[in-house]
Amino acid sequence: MTIAIPGEKGSFTELAAIEYFGVKNNYSIVPDFRGVFDAVNSGKCLHGVVPIENSLAGSIHQNYDSLLDSDIRINGEISLRISHFLIANKGVQLKNVQRVFSHPQPIAQCKNWLSRHPSVESIPYSFTSLAVKKIKEERLMDAAAIASMQAAIDFDMEILASNIEDNKWNTTRFIILSKKEKVLRTNKTKSSIVFSTRNIPGALFKCLAVFALRDIDLFKIESRPFHGKGFRYLFYLDFEGDLRQESCENAINHLKEMTTLYKFLGSYPIGKQVIPKYHKNRE
Amino acid sequence: MTIAIPGEKGSFTELAAIEYFGVKNNYSIVPDFRGVFDAVNSGKCLHGVVPIENSLAGSIHQNYDSLLDSDIRINGEISLRISHFLIANKGVQLKNVQRVFSHPQPIAQCKNWLSRHPSVESIPYSFTSLAVKKIKEERLMDAAAIASMQAAIDFDMEILASNIEDNKWNTTRFIILSKKEKVLRTNKTKSSIVFSTRNIPGALFKCLAVFALRDIDLFKIESRPFHGKGFRYLFYLDFEGDLRQESCENAINHLKEMTTLYKFLGSYPIGKQVIPKYHKNRE
Repeated sequence: MTIAIPGEKGSFTELAAIEYFGVKNNYSIVPDFRGVFDAVNSGKCLHGVVPIENSLAGSIHQNYDSLLDSDIRINGEISLRISHFLIANKGVQLKNVQRVFSHPQPIAQCKNWLSRHPSVESIPYSFTSLAVKKIKEERLMDAAAIASMQAAIDFDMEILASNIEDNKWNTTRFIILSKKEKVLRTNKTKSSIVFSTRNIPGALFKCLAVFALRDIDLFKIESRPFHGKGFRYLFYLDFEGDLRQESCENAINHLKEMTTLYKFLGSYPIGKQVIPKYHKNRE
Repeated sequence: MTIAIPGEKGSFTELAAIEYFGVKNNYSIVPDFRGVFDAVNSGKCLHGVVPIENSLAGSIHQNYDSLLDSDIRINGEISLRISHFLIANKGVQLKNVQRVFSHPQPIAQCKNWLSRHPSVESIPYSFTSLAVKKIKEERLMDAAAIASMQAAIDFDMEILASNIEDNKWNTTRFIILSKKEKVLRTNKTKSSIVFSTRNIPGALFKCLAVFALRDIDLFKIESRPFHGKGFRYLFYLDFEGDLRQESCENAINHLKEMTTLYKFLGSYPIGKQVIPKYHKNRE
């Protein structure tokens, strides 16, 4: 079973995939999020993993768009605590560090730590773990990288500072993709849908009534202004349960009476939130 | 009147500010979004401008958090079409370009164009207009930058390709900040609030009822899982109207009966969506 992962080894998406599928699986690195959808759609990979929302940066609309454009289903989810580490070559001490390489997002997320070290210059880099690779290969003794602890392990580097992120509740939710619908064996399930309504007062309220009147709990709701063929709002909704339950099935049939667009993205077991484990001596 | 702008001159936020306030005002560049809030809060600047949501990247929670943490009000809004341009030194032709410098977000937003030019390497850079400055100062004749047309004008550079972004509906909504509430002189207004409810089925539905039962239209709703003191959901809501209207005032009083947190962010005239104009010979 091959699982498509975007970007790079040692990324948070790879850590999420390993938490979900285990370390023994065969992971295939593809260039970007779109590449994950392509690999699953073509059958090259049975599954794929992409981030869908971060507690600071919000929903990743690009991946919602790819779900809307394809018949790929969400089969599962897992949420990861995001922690950043300052990583350098062995022998480098914190006082030697004059430059820090990382992706702009981790740089922004470690602003407090960086402002307490004003002599350290931040230099943007394409991927966090490639920044670790760069300072290792170029044997830079005045530089460090901000990346995951896994990148420090993979490249056998020193950790100069741990958990340097400003917000200790920085969490990313990842979704597991598949061409098939998940076979559900638990009752702790949720379902994700996207829909659009006519833009009239109270339309969304009536749509939510189909869930509230049946005591179906909501996990997520988000409106997104959407410009495609004309202007409309897309609504993202995650609700508790799945279509094996009569109340959910009826709610969806009721909802469809009122929507101008409706897409079922998948039903899946409610995921855990984990602090990632790190893995030594990966092949 | 001084207006705080984050990051850099020639940015989309500065273009939005100029569209809103006019080119003749006094703009003060501060390092980042937080700096805009600080400048307004300290009274150093009467107004500030920050992005609040992008049609592809979603809500900017960091700026919602700064609104929640302060007593700064939203006084207005303006939405800007985001277009990217390939910018190079005079004399450089497209066939000469081997490297493109830009912020990772514009690089990601121009992926289709870049994939049609596979020999061009993308190199991440901290700010788009600083990338233009760099290739000018270093007189690079094999490089280009992806930035706004304003950056090409400001640095007197050549535009090699226009509107190279993948998605032609890439729009960012900016908000105008002030310590004072906006004095409203129009009826075409909207209001922004943040609230939290007890996490029980139907709680959100009841909250939305206070608007639906009064035929008050919603522009935006978004739930955000929030980890601070315990876990809860924050809801962002933009609705039509303002508290001069009895129906809106009653709706808010009704809403407050059900919320565990409520914060009014401001009432303001409904903003325009504009394609930015560019400005020659700025001081």
